[in-house]
Amino acid sequence: MNWINELKKRLPEGQVTDNPTVLEHHSKDESYHTPRLPDVVVFPRCREDVVEVVRFAGEREIPVVPFGIGSSLEGHVIPERGGISIDFQEMNQVLEVRPEDFLVRVQPGVTRTQLNKELKKYGLFFPVDPGADATLGGMAATNASGTTSVRYGVTRDQVRDLEVVLADGRVIHTGGASAKSSSGYHLTGLFVGSEGTLGIFTELTLRVYGIPEGILAARATFPSVHNAVQTAVSVLSAGIPVARMELVDARSIRQLNQFSQTDYPEAPTLFFEFHGNPEGLQKDAAFTRELAEAEGSRGFLFETDSKARATLWEARHNLAYAFIHGTPGKKQMATDVCVPLSRLAESVENARRLIDDSSLDGGIVGHIGDGNFHALLMLDPSNPQEVAEADRIHANLVEHALNCGGTCTGEHGVGIGKKKYQAREHGPAYEVMKEIKQLLDPKGILNPGKIV
Amino acid sequence: MNWINELKKRLPEGQVTDNPTVLEHHSKDESYHTPRLPDVVVFPRCREDVVEVVRFAGEREIPVVPFGIGSSLEGHVIPERGGISIDFQEMNQVLEVRPEDFLVRVQPGVTRTQLNKELKKYGLFFPVDPGADATLGGMAATNASGTTSVRYGVTRDQVRDLEVVLADGRVIHTGGASAKSSSGYHLTGLFVGSEGTLGIFTELTLRVYGIPEGILAARATFPSVHNAVQTAVSVLSAGIPVARMELVDARSIRQLNQFSQTDYPEAPTLFFEFHGNPEGLQKDAAFTRELAEAEGSRGFLFETDSKARATLWEARHNLAYAFIHGTPGKKQMATDVCVPLSRLAESVENARRLIDDSSLDGGIVGHIGDGNFHALLMLDPSNPQEVAEADRIHANLVEHALNCGGTCTGEHGVGIGKKKYQAREHGPAYEVMKEIKQLLDPKGILNPGKIV
Ligand SMILES: Cc1cc2nc3c(=O)[nH]c(=O)nc-3n(C[C@H](O)[C@H](O)[C@H](O)COP(=O)(O)OP(=O)(O)OC[C@H]3O[C@@H](n4cnc5c(N)ncnc54)[C@H](O)[C@@H]3O)c2cc1C
Ligand SMILES: Cc1cc2nc3c(=O)[nH]c(=O)nc-3n(C[C@H](O)[C@H](O)[C@H](O)COP(=O)(O)OP(=O)(O)OC[C@H]3O[C@@H](n4cnc5c(N)ncnc54)[C@H](O)[C@@H]3O)c2cc1C
Repeated sequence: MNWINELKKRLPEGQVTDNPTVLEHHSKDESYHTPRLPDVVVFPRCREDVVEVVRFAGEREIPVVPFGIGSSLEGHVIPERGGISIDFQEMNQVLEVRPEDFLVRVQPGVTRTQLNKELKKYGLFFPVDPGADATLGGMAATNASGTTSVRYGVTRDQVRDLEVVLADGRVIHTGGASAKSSSGYHLTGLFVGSEGTLGIFTELTLRVYGIPEGILAARATFPSVHNAVQTAVSVLSAGIPVARMELVDARSIRQLNQFSQTDYPEAPTLFFEFHGNPEGLQKDAAFTRELAEAEGSRGFLFETDSKARATLWEARHNLAYAFIHGTPGKKQMATDVCVPLSRLAESVENARRLIDDSSLDGGIVGHIGDGNFHALLMLDPSNPQEVAEADRIHANLVEHALNCGGTCTGEHGVGIGKKKYQAREHGPAYEVMKEIKQLLDPKGILNPGKIV
Repeated sequence: MNWINELKKRLPEGQVTDNPTVLEHHSKDESYHTPRLPDVVVFPRCREDVVEVVRFAGEREIPVVPFGIGSSLEGHVIPERGGISIDFQEMNQVLEVRPEDFLVRVQPGVTRTQLNKELKKYGLFFPVDPGADATLGGMAATNASGTTSVRYGVTRDQVRDLEVVLADGRVIHTGGASAKSSSGYHLTGLFVGSEGTLGIFTELTLRVYGIPEGILAARATFPSVHNAVQTAVSVLSAGIPVARMELVDARSIRQLNQFSQTDYPEAPTLFFEFHGNPEGLQKDAAFTRELAEAEGSRGFLFETDSKARATLWEARHNLAYAFIHGTPGKKQMATDVCVPLSRLAESVENARRLIDDSSLDGGIVGHIGDGNFHALLMLDPSNPQEVAEADRIHANLVEHALNCGGTCTGEHGVGIGKKKYQAREHGPAYEVMKEIKQLLDPKGILNPGKIV
């Protein structure tokens, strides 16, 4: 294609490539969705590079698809209509740490572990922790969350300002550095979670937190998933400021033991973490234990040394990979519904029953304090029957969640996979979303085919 | 006017009035801004009434201005171009309390004290507490915050779903009942803080919290405002999860003592509150005291009984009124900048100096943990020199805040008064805001002349 050579001339040597291996790497994410090659991959080094690419794409109406590390799970980064994949790996600088302001300014390609390594020097941390080592740009674009969101909130809650390149090449800042503002319309909230369809982030200002004085981890096994979920609800009702509270069902514990060389009892389990001053922590943990025991928990175990604690959370974070690597030849479909707490137990039980009654294997894990859980379904994407089975389970879970006032996606985002549920979930508001997309990207060049 | 009679026919008897006293009441807010009468005031009883009024207004291109209780401070509810004031006082039902989900569904005319009275029955509370007994609709429309936002966040953080009547009469829901979502574009965040210019809220689903197990209040006086601010910064840096931390300067303490019959020492003071389990609380408070004493605080006093605690916060909440009622014939201009913590001390000191060097009287109070503070300037709106003096101070504070990466309004909103700072604060993003306004309200009937 002629335009690729033209694009190469517009950017410095080596930043534009159509090398087949590179194209292939940018054709897929970590899920079951069908890959599609981009025509070309660009590696910008600064905002101006991104402006240049977007202007170029706008002139020719060529799609542009931002790419973090491609860990999203609903086909977000797949260039459905070809075009330019913009990979942010060379924009990976932590630009400024402002400890007194609890702020950090980063380029979008910085990953969460890279950021936390830097922040640790200042006694600070960034709380949001998806299972993959995602980029901050990708996390802001999907409104990612994780194990600590029950305490610290989701990515949107951490974003103070975005530098955004719009579809026409304009550059805006959506916010500022102050902790709160009632000035103008809240564009930050709108761009966070927009999955590269409204604008491209070239810089982020994020809220960070002091590393807590004391940290205490624990795990508890339960007779049933129902008891585990009820415990989680009791903990929140009691106002215990739990920092992490994760459900791992018996099937998932088995997978985790195999992959992470742990020997946790194969029963429905809650993983807990508490943050605070030592006196408060002990009280919180003791109270939690009481509540768990009232729900029939037999083993409530504190992970007192920091190594056991690290093992616990590493095992939890690697759970999706434990299924992926433990089931060669299969890919993963991760459902992601989020429901009000009062409907959580029945939702999780419904999911377990659906999997058990199907021909598919899969575990259930969840950020249970938020009402968000995943059925991790293993399937062979080339087997239409397995795909149909997984789709059926997924659709059932979503329908149930929406009937509870919940959402089809608590944290992974829409991408391609959850587009079909958008009209049902948002009703007439979906039209307003389409109008906003049309306003900000009239030519439809920004990650076309996603969300709307 | 002929259309008023037509409008009267469109709604049930008694819900539409052009009674002069009622018009007058809807011509102003609680600030120094010049009143302007609406042509008519409507009291809707349900969503359909609002749809009817908006459709009617759209057909004739008549302005509609939503009205909560009119406690906003920047002319938000003043019908700058006449038209219809929509007063929500008859839509004041708490529709549903869902304790297990930590959710409440309300009509927009419910006030925060009315809501908290209802929630108390369930051991719950809604944390955001502007000084006035504002409506939830008004608070969502201005993204109000208050003394507890340092711990619980601002109004936007509490809104899960809005039912919104759009300018063309369409009704949408912006969110749902789950704790988090990555589905679609985040319209909730966009509509919160839009001051009636993008749509009219007819129902809100809000997050609520369990009343904490233990509450402890304290106050501490300091040799200087600088020491008080530094203490606040230390408390946050230490990760103490303070629930309230308010700065009241010496001038304001004097006014407060007069109005609230207290006898607090007339020195720069911090008011604190801690929420949590008793063990954690004591530890947090003791640590805070240490930090205050390191900054030269002499009197650190616990308000142990609940009456003294109530007095403390009532006095704080009534501070603006203490100035207003204590200075007959004058009106109040409340500045509202919010800056990053590292720039807070110099900002507050600059404000104090500007007031001292001027001919105006005024105090400084602030939600200091958020970097947000108010200079409460008393002025005679009919005296051009006083107005000019207040404007000059205001402009200076805003310019200083913007140079620090802060905002012209941390919580009060833009209304008429802070429109002139919008382009400077938001730069090219202000154009995007205008485009969104144009998209959602092409005829410009929704609260015209505000924000954009
Ligand atoms: C094992 C595993 C576990 C996971 N666990 C979680 C979890 O707990 N919670 C969770 O939320 N997610 C989870 N995910 C999903 C994924 O990690 C998140 O969605 C993450 O936010 C994606 O980040 P990324 O850098 O990989 O972005 P990508 O996948 O590269 O991109 C994601 C989206 O963001 C857009 N984007 C990327 N960069 C930019 C930019 N600079 N400007 C604008 N748009 C941009 C892309 O176009 C795309 O639409 C998990 C994934 C895996 C594989
Ligand atoms: C003494 C005093 C102290 C204050 N302290 C604080 C404080 O600490 N923090 C703070 O944030 N504010 C404070 N304020 C300002 C004010 O209380 C807030 O802005 C409050 O949110 C306004 O609520 P209201 O019900 O009075 O709304 P109104 O003043 O009636 O309206 C405010 C805005 O909201 C719009 N609106 C109202 N209802 C709706 C609806 N249903 N749909 C769409 N738009 C609507 C109006 O059109 C207007 O633009 C204070 C005010 C006073 C007088």
